[in-house]
Amino acid sequence: MAGDGVEVAKLEEKELKLCEDQVSHLALDIGGSLIKMVYFSSSSSCSTDDQENGFIREGTNTSSGNLEYRVLSGRLHFLKFETSKISECIEFISSKRLQHYGDQGDEAPAGDKHIVKATGGGAFKFSDLFKEKLGIILDKVDEMSSLVAGANFLLKAVHHEAFTYMDGVKDYVQIDHKDLYPYLLVNVGSGVSMIKVDGDNEFERVSGTSVGGGTFWGLGKLLTKCKSFDELLELSHQGNNRVIDMLVGDIYGGTGYSKIGLTSTTIASSFGKAVSQNKELEDYRTEDVARSLLRMISNNIGQIAYLNALRFGLKRIFFGGFFIRGHEYTMDTISVAVHFWSNGEAKALFLHHEGFLGALGAFMSYEKQGCTDIAHQFMEEHSSVAKSPFCTSDRLESSTHTDVKDNGCIECRVQVRN
Amino acid sequence: MAGDGVEVAKLEEKELKLCEDQVSHLALDIGGSLIKMVYFSSSSSCSTDDQENGFIREGTNTSSGNLEYRVLSGRLHFLKFETSKISECIEFISSKRLQHYGDQGDEAPAGDKHIVKATGGGAFKFSDLFKEKLGIILDKVDEMSSLVAGANFLLKAVHHEAFTYMDGVKDYVQIDHKDLYPYLLVNVGSGVSMIKVDGDNEFERVSGTSVGGGTFWGLGKLLTKCKSFDELLELSHQGNNRVIDMLVGDIYGGTGYSKIGLTSTTIASSFGKAVSQNKELEDYRTEDVARSLLRMISNNIGQIAYLNALRFGLKRIFFGGFFIRGHEYTMDTISVAVHFWSNGEAKALFLHHEGFLGALGAFMSYEKQGCTDIAHQFMEEHSSVAKSPFCTSDRLESSTHTDVKDNGCIECRVQVRN
Repeated sequence: MAGDGVEVAKLEEKELKLCEDQVSHLALDIGGSLIKMVYFSSSSSCSTDDQENGFIREGTNTSSGNLEYRVLSGRLHFLKFETSKISECIEFISSKRLQHYGDQGDEAPAGDKHIVKATGGGAFKFSDLFKEKLGIILDKVDEMSSLVAGANFLLKAVHHEAFTYMDGVKDYVQIDHKDLYPYLLVNVGSGVSMIKVDGDNEFERVSGTSVGGGTFWGLGKLLTKCKSFDELLELSHQGNNRVIDMLVGDIYGGTGYSKIGLTSTTIASSFGKAVSQNKELEDYRTEDVARSLLRMISNNIGQIAYLNALRFGLKRIFFGGFFIRGHEYTMDTISVAVHFWSNGEAKALFLHHEGFLGALGAFMSYEKQGCTDIAHQFMEEHSSVAKSPFCTSDRLESSTHTDVKDNGCIECRVQVRN
Repeated sequence: MAGDGVEVAKLEEKELKLCEDQVSHLALDIGGSLIKMVYFSSSSSCSTDDQENGFIREGTNTSSGNLEYRVLSGRLHFLKFETSKISECIEFISSKRLQHYGDQGDEAPAGDKHIVKATGGGAFKFSDLFKEKLGIILDKVDEMSSLVAGANFLLKAVHHEAFTYMDGVKDYVQIDHKDLYPYLLVNVGSGVSMIKVDGDNEFERVSGTSVGGGTFWGLGKLLTKCKSFDELLELSHQGNNRVIDMLVGDIYGGTGYSKIGLTSTTIASSFGKAVSQNKELEDYRTEDVARSLLRMISNNIGQIAYLNALRFGLKRIFFGGFFIRGHEYTMDTISVAVHFWSNGEAKALFLHHEGFLGALGAFMSYEKQGCTDIAHQFMEEHSSVAKSPFCTSDRLESSTHTDVKDNGCIECRVQVRN
């Protein structure tokens, strides 16, 4: 995580410069470890559809009255910063004048009062800081609602968003929108929330665990002196957990305990070998320590997720949050855990934009406020007329305009009231 | 754990000397980290009931024929050693000639072939070692069966065995034997097994986790350089987990997330503060590290146990294994986890002889083998005639002769075929 925000910011910088005049709808998710940012840009450089399709329309007649709208093609951009380096995030917003692209209240003079949708605990914690430094009023959006809205949007609107990962094979899953609900959403941020999702805005946080991404990174930092989350992940890639984990075979003298389905290579006790080996931390390779830690946490999350899916008869478990990061071993461990415990009945699915569910949900919440002066809508490709200007994500069902670009941008269209 | 075996052995030494001529029925549970030992002694010094009650009877007429039995009063003794220092265990057995007090096969010349009941993976792993060093043939008893038999015995036969612990208050629970089943047995050894127990020998291992006692001790040793499990526990007693754990209040700026029932002091991410604090391992107090680790693991075990109890509608969860050790904070954390997640519907119960379930089960298995030359029976106090010489633990229902002494010995009677 250390430096990630800056790194991502740099990657985006060139593109941002091209787009900055057309930026709109900044939204933030300020978590315990990371700040996630989503914004929309509609510059000609970024928007490929506008000219080709002549898609800019005005004066759409809507169910809520005759209102004037512009439909803009463009991209959703995703950035992250470390929460502990929040000043970098603030500087970035300031230097790019992103604060102007939130939601300006009707009665406020332009440039005076900037309302930006924000979720996560930091929306409360850093409320004063954003006001003081940027003149931004953070409009707090409920964290769980945001996660669910973000997940529903991605699952319905974005191609190649959800995929399974097992035995080294990544398979994209096309979601049948009519058969999406119910599902279990497991958001692995610093901590873990498990949410049963029954519909667009129907959900319940049914469980969670404090053993999450913050544990991997926090404990991993103490154990390995790694400087970043990704460095720790990379280390784990080269490690061998059997050096420190106590396997069933270590206890049973090389054999398994077949009567109860435990093979000799099943981990009996994470870090259990450190009990009897006469070694100190420094005597272990940091790679092996990182690997054991990752395995322990991934497996634990997979198991608790499965047990909660079982409670409610949920067959699909979507994993979000910034813990996984497309890391093969993490996904494999979670998949195996869910497969093993459920006897293959439940399935672990991962999301390409896993870390941005909350920020996307906050972004989506702009459009739900029919009373504000900006409404926008992701358009359905197969429908020539938008169904409503105040779109909720279920209107995105057949959109194929939203697509993922290599850098994680999503191409899409938003409808903006003039 | 380091040195514990020796320590316990020393404690017992004086008593053992008095009893050694009357020792019988050695049984072992050889786990990944610890070897647990149970044996029975019937010396006059140990047996308080023999003379008082004139309880030695011979020639009990049994359902299996006219067999000659002696009923001996005495004590069950409990010792533990570290598995990594198995030579200490072997020396102890050898010096006390305990190997003679297993079960001698009918056809073997005395002193030549000693059969000792043993369970745990080490019964397989160290089979050759015991044969070579002590001439002992380890008669392997299934690990899960042993745990269940041991737990059922304790719950039915021993006063002041099971108790709840919450908010600093320890309450002994008198088990209604007719209402004992079903229950969830959670054995926290190096790893954790979760067993649904439906009757005397009816059970199923329904779950488990690799995050157990071996994780606490292994990871704790790496993090704190502690020399023993108990030293680590003691450290944790003086620590403050809030120094390293990221609380909901840390994310939300001092407030909780009341909408979903998370107070400001709820742990959002175990070890999560280490992510952003610019500290290395050495900058933290070992007490605080130990505390966070204990809290993380205890809470996780409590949560997974609850989720499994919920699956099967089990209201009582008994925690065994050598992880808990009567440690108040551990019990409190587990109790709170079970209480919190179950909305008070499920209850965590702890066992005075928590660590010896497997060894006791192996011990009990002597009596189940009607074909061997030794059968023994824990007598029912309120029944003047034993129901069967091959007692299974359900015959212990109203026994109050089995009672716990301060050093963990259990006073009881065994019936031995001459």
